[in-house]
Amino acid sequence: MDKVRVAVNGYGTIGRRVADAVLRQDDMELVGVTKATPDFRCLEAEEKGIRVFSVSDKSAFDVKGFSVEGNLMELLDASDVVVDCTPKNSAYIELYRRFPSLFAIFQGGEKHSLTGFSFNSNCNYSRAFGMKYARVVSCNTTALCRVLSQIDGVYGVKKVRVAIARRSVDPGEGRKDGLLNAWEPALEYPSHHAVDVKTVMPKINIVSLAGIAPMTIMHGHMMFVELMSKPGSSDEVSEMLSVNPRIRVISGDDGFSTTAQIKDYAESLNDGNTYEVCVWKDGIGIDDDGELGMHVAIDQQADVIPENVDAIRAVLGIACAEDSMAKTNSSLGIGRKLNRLVSEKRIVA
Amino acid sequence: MDKVRVAVNGYGTIGRRVADAVLRQDDMELVGVTKATPDFRCLEAEEKGIRVFSVSDKSAFDVKGFSVEGNLMELLDASDVVVDCTPKNSAYIELYRRFPSLFAIFQGGEKHSLTGFSFNSNCNYSRAFGMKYARVVSCNTTALCRVLSQIDGVYGVKKVRVAIARRSVDPGEGRKDGLLNAWEPALEYPSHHAVDVKTVMPKINIVSLAGIAPMTIMHGHMMFVELMSKPGSSDEVSEMLSVNPRIRVISGDDGFSTTAQIKDYAESLNDGNTYEVCVWKDGIGIDDDGELGMHVAIDQQADVIPENVDAIRAVLGIACAEDSMAKTNSSLGIGRKLNRLVSEKRIVA
Repeated sequence: MDKVRVAVNGYGTIGRRVADAVLRQDDMELVGVTKATPDFRCLEAEEKGIRVFSVSDKSAFDVKGFSVEGNLMELLDASDVVVDCTPKNSAYIELYRRFPSLFAIFQGGEKHSLTGFSFNSNCNYSRAFGMKYARVVSCNTTALCRVLSQIDGVYGVKKVRVAIARRSVDPGEGRKDGLLNAWEPALEYPSHHAVDVKTVMPKINIVSLAGIAPMTIMHGHMMFVELMSKPGSSDEVSEMLSVNPRIRVISGDDGFSTTAQIKDYAESLNDGNTYEVCVWKDGIGIDDDGELGMHVAIDQQADVIPENVDAIRAVLGIACAEDSMAKTNSSLGIGRKLNRLVSEKRIVA
Repeated sequence: MDKVRVAVNGYGTIGRRVADAVLRQDDMELVGVTKATPDFRCLEAEEKGIRVFSVSDKSAFDVKGFSVEGNLMELLDASDVVVDCTPKNSAYIELYRRFPSLFAIFQGGEKHSLTGFSFNSNCNYSRAFGMKYARVVSCNTTALCRVLSQIDGVYGVKKVRVAIARRSVDPGEGRKDGLLNAWEPALEYPSHHAVDVKTVMPKINIVSLAGIAPMTIMHGHMMFVELMSKPGSSDEVSEMLSVNPRIRVISGDDGFSTTAQIKDYAESLNDGNTYEVCVWKDGIGIDDDGELGMHVAIDQQADVIPENVDAIRAVLGIACAEDSMAKTNSSLGIGRKLNRLVSEKRIVA
């Protein structure tokens, strides 16, 4: 089979990670990426041999000596699917519609109504087949869908209350309207996160509260999960979660006392990306009512990347869920390290 | 009646605020405070005319030219009650026992078992009478007791899930083992906060999760409160909360978008202290199950101060709960400003 020709529109925080991931897929070809401004990301692309297409005045790139292959229209014309990583509400969908055979994957910053279909690999991969336009839900929603679908399959979820301590800005954003030394609550109940989970898991009873903390590297979730049946133990819960390679079970006892250690580990092993949602094994508890409490950490820049790769295969129907996820996981190094550490420990103990 | 003679053992973050508050009570006399190290707080005390007693070598104070009136034993001998604001586990209780008529108030860093009685003005004031030793619960527990007793009295509380985004260090602690740019979950469920609430409200069903964020000025609570009866509206809930002068109803719409604005307001009006627990009016919501969601902010240095003042009167039995709280509130400027703003708005609307 020919490789799927992929365009990435927008080579920023998410776009450059999607591009890197596409480069690692043996069934995909990265046709190119777009840039609106001639900045350091052009150098990144050049170093990686990625072709850059311009969505603005090409001469601005020429002046700086950055090579540009053509414009967005030319890129789309040469592609089977475009992954839209432009800022939210940038409304490129109208442009994409001009290419009748082009599929498009959008990010979670867009509204569900843009595509009418919101995607998560664990929850609704097979429903994506044939959808011209799909939306990969946001990092927080992706994390919740991943963890809750796993829990629901085993114990049944009655109601979820989740409190989210969000990062203020991304690590690469030096001066974007950040928050310093204060707590900023999102003044809504439920926050949009619970509402967004329902675009993927319509039957789940979930509410959320969220606030922003002055940090950049990850989000923290505090989850209260009311269950249909009571888990045998917190160890049982962590084993159950670790079955999903995209859920990484970590431990404060192994030195992961804050999100900083998770990030540092990822810097050492995976270009700084933690594609897995991280659950602290020693933070899992079961209360007198059989309700589950747990702490989860989410790399807001990375956890949606494997879903974007899967979404490409899902809409085109070139692989089933299991095969796509296995391929994505293997190519991105997902799920191979810490979960093994956990099982080895179990065997030894 | 003679004024109650109060000693404050430990003139630090809490101690200096307790001392300031005692100075404002017309039924109390501040005999003096203790210092272990000769530092800038001695100058603060001197400026305020507060007598300093030493718990360490007096000569170290003499060298720096700080005046010391005597030692801790002399201070205790001249006092009816000591408010212990020393670091937790400093075990002064043995010393206090040597003074048979001396009452002692401890802080929430101590274990409940130290005194066997944990105090909150709204919950169990009258039970304190005659207790030689009482413990004012921590800032987070005080806030939860205050808010939940108010809600429970009106709607009945079925179960509470609270997620706490804690400040890392206090504003005055420049270099104490702080947290930078990361989220640090407390790896336990429930966290000690829920357990501690039960020392004051033994019948309440409450669980909690907590984490530390890199900020100094306040804690943020995200509360999910399951109720016996459904509130009519979120406005009704905020009106109900504002009945308690120690709960300040604020609004993002008035400019309180983060804890930084709350702190700035307090700097302008009340020496930086927010004695009231702050609830965002526009953050209150009621979900489809009739469950309440809300955001609360807590000034960890200030909310326990009125409780310490009340606890003195409560153990000595010199005022009933209502009178003591009214006197404390009036002397500390509690509850007079923003709640009025809220009611005026209501009348206009």
